Amino acid sequence: MLTLHESHRWIDTAMPEETKSRATQAPIDYADASPEVRAVYDDIMTYRKTDWVNNYWKVLAHHPPTLRRMWANFKEVMGPGTLDPLTKELIYMAVSVTNGCRYCIASHGAAARKKGITPAQHAELVAIIGLANETNRHAVALDLEVDEQFK
Amino acid sequence: MLTLHESHRWIDTAMPEETKSRATQAPIDYADASPEVRAVYDDIMTYRKTDWVNNYWKVLAHHPPTLRRMWANFKEVMGPGTLDPLTKELIYMAVSVTNGCRYCIASHGAAARKKGITPAQHAELVAIIGLANETNRHAVALDLEVDEQFK
Amino acid sequence: MLTLHESHRWIDTAMPEETKSRATQAPIDYADASPEVRAVYDDIMTYRKTDWVNNYWKVLAHHPPTLRRMWANFKEVMGPGTLDPLTKELIYMAVSVTNGCRYCIASHGAAARKKGITPAQHAELVAIIGLANETNRHAVALDLEVDEQFK
Amino acid sequence: MLTLHESHRWIDTAMPEETKSRATQAPIDYADASPEVRAVYDDIMTYRKTDWVNNYWKVLAHHPPTLRRMWANFKEVMGPGTLDPLTKELIYMAVSVTNGCRYCIASHGAAARKKGITPAQHAELVAIIGLANETNRHAVALDLEVDEQFK
Amino acid sequence: MLTLHESHRWIDTAMPEETKSRATQAPIDYADASPEVRAVYDDIMTYRKTDWVNNYWKVLAHHPPTLRRMWANFKEVMGPGTLDPLTKELIYMAVSVTNGCRYCIASHGAAARKKGITPAQHAELVAIIGLANETNRHAVALDLEVDEQFK
Amino acid sequence: MLTLHESHRWIDTAMPEETKSRATQAPIDYADASPEVRAVYDDIMTYRKTDWVNNYWKVLAHHPPTLRRMWANFKEVMGPGTLDPLTKELIYMAVSVTNGCRYCIASHGAAARKKGITPAQHAELVAIIGLANETNRHAVALDLEVDEQFK
Repeated sequence: MLTLHESHRWIDTAMPEETKSRATQAPIDYADASPEVRAVYDDIMTYRKTDWVNNYWKVLAHHPPTLRRMWANFKEVMGPGTLDPLTKELIYMAVSVTNGCRYCIASHGAAARKKGITPAQHAELVAIIGLANETNRHAVALDLEVDEQFK
Repeated sequence: MLTLHESHRWIDTAMPEETKSRATQAPIDYADASPEVRAVYDDIMTYRKTDWVNNYWKVLAHHPPTLRRMWANFKEVMGPGTLDPLTKELIYMAVSVTNGCRYCIASHGAAARKKGITPAQHAELVAIIGLANETNRHAVALDLEVDEQFK
Repeated sequence: MLTLHESHRWIDTAMPEETKSRATQAPIDYADASPEVRAVYDDIMTYRKTDWVNNYWKVLAHHPPTLRRMWANFKEVMGPGTLDPLTKELIYMAVSVTNGCRYCIASHGAAARKKGITPAQHAELVAIIGLANETNRHAVALDLEVDEQFK
Repeated sequence: MLTLHESHRWIDTAMPEETKSRATQAPIDYADASPEVRAVYDDIMTYRKTDWVNNYWKVLAHHPPTLRRMWANFKEVMGPGTLDPLTKELIYMAVSVTNGCRYCIASHGAAARKKGITPAQHAELVAIIGLANETNRHAVALDLEVDEQFK
Repeated sequence: MLTLHESHRWIDTAMPEETKSRATQAPIDYADASPEVRAVYDDIMTYRKTDWVNNYWKVLAHHPPTLRRMWANFKEVMGPGTLDPLTKELIYMAVSVTNGCRYCIASHGAAARKKGITPAQHAELVAIIGLANETNRHAVALDLEVDEQFK
Repeated sequence: MLTLHESHRWIDTAMPEETKSRATQAPIDYADASPEVRAVYDDIMTYRKTDWVNNYWKVLAHHPPTLRRMWANFKEVMGPGTLDPLTKELIYMAVSVTNGCRYCIASHGAAARKKGITPAQHAELVAIIGLANETNRHAVALDLEVDEQFK
């Protein structure tokens, strides 16, 4: 195994081109993808019944093991289970809003709309997220002890 | 403009007893509560069909306007709407776990159990919260652009 | 009550137009607002002695109960009390910066300027926010025990 | 698929015992584990050259698919690669401290010690985590534009 | 400079005692402190007009350069300036509550009491922190555009 | 005690021009900088062997004491020590991604590239950050007890 120590220098020497670029962050289109990456893209499109793949996967594609691993996780966690698909998206949204992840709010907001969220449901979701963030801070500020009845 | 600096003392002078104590953080029991606080406690117990009030409200009770205000918010946001009661608790949990609020996880976990969450549903909730926190960071680390299709 | 389950489908079917749009996020101008929304806008402008309303309220306006509720909360929490108006804005800024909320930093930064914050005070605010975030992490990393004297 | 709606009630009815308990949070010891869970425990101990399994896995064990999935992720992400093992633990610690996860700081702190972290390295780690949290907030508070040279 | 690579092993070998202990986290009392650490403790007590030092400094003391550096930062940022001492503590509290740092809430809560915060002011502080956390999430969830007037 | 309330004005009065501007956020170029600020810029460029200064320092320059203080901290914490320079950047990135600080990710990402990070190392960094954020939430959601072996 090549160690960290061996792979870099403290002094600034000339860097090979590939380490200078930010190429790892450009989405890889289907046309430019390796067979291994295309296989995941194909599975994503089949699973979702769509003809395109969003940037999350197209940027992860720079590291195929991560692409494969995350897609497998995604299918297992977000696939059919005991919570219905829209509820799963609402939970995802609650986390993404609390973390302030703009991309995630856009992508899972779109997914929620695709699964039929109504404007009233969206408004309730936003209200609950806000209230929970408020009361979370109250609980912490006041150093509340967990009630016996909750244990 | 008169500055803030002029309005205080840097040196430590004797403080009135009530500002020294941490009394604001001790829960106020029904027996010790003012009529105004009891009125809110009564409404909480009636609304929830229970005979007790949890620490969140009993500590907020040190500032009756906040107690009243938060209970009114709570009823409006968490009351009947277009999302069902258990879904509302799951959203609350997703926020509370992401914020690391131990009290809130305990109290809303209890509420979710009361509303019938099954162990399998709880396991799925935890898995989704974890996955969303993971992919949120991927999206941020890779500075993903929002896809046109999501706009 | 219409439940979540009844309002959506797992399979992708045609969606009614209103659920496809992101219309809930477009600000609603006074001219286009319902009487109920206008009443809140009027109160905001009177209270603030201004002739315009900012986007926060104009987007919340898609769900009038939330608009009304949040404005009532805002007036109660940020209105006259024992902390002066500028101090209240500084606390709001400290939270907004820690959460990384760009909109909130802009809006409450403007409010702080309107209430007379000086550049030196702003620089001190930013320095304290930074230092507190630093020492917060030290305390957590080192798993510090709360001193008896602080209890 | 059983939907959320079908699995719970708004009204409080008697709950089956298993949903009332918090049993999902008690660690499952090897002696009490199913063969499927034991297989994962065995792999963990072999991989780590230890004779015990920590609570994270023993609590996840209540949902064997999550246990299996997370262990597979863990091995893939934290296993041999281009970053050395101690560096990986330092990154893990930086995240855990920033999120305020006490359990994670304890477990990955122990892992870092096992991999040879020195007190001086630990002190530097804590100092960097603190400084980064400080300057992160400065950058956000001041709404810094990304320099051309960084793009 | 000793590099990371040289200081650890992938394989688990016997560790020197000092790396096994968690000694870096035990507070160092004055009696056990080196002259260099005592000099900082002395300055802390003189500056604060107290006869004791809290755990934050006593744990940092394991790495004297960090102890010295943080105390110098603390005096510069929290010392006399254009914001008064109590306001500075309120800002510190707002950050600490938002980050969920229990130790910091306890220590700066005590400092605020020492500087004369009243129960009513504390209640207002907590209410503002809560509200700001709530509206921060609304702003993010709704992807609000910054108003021209705020720029 | 004289309260904060007495030291301010609730009503909007005319503000001096300097408090209205957002001038504190415009980067100060070398040509426009005071000698005291230039001295820090010079030291930054010498230390980094570059001929430019990034926006973080050029915006902090509006408050020279903060500029000087932060640069001194930066040199002490990020300078030579027992962790190698690239590892320090990885830790900085882990914090910045977890906090969602876009500027910091861009600037420390550039620093990591300058210090030789390879695309594979970057991919591993992102994967670890994601995984740690995921398991942090699991640990919190499940309220895990710290194992005896970790203490």
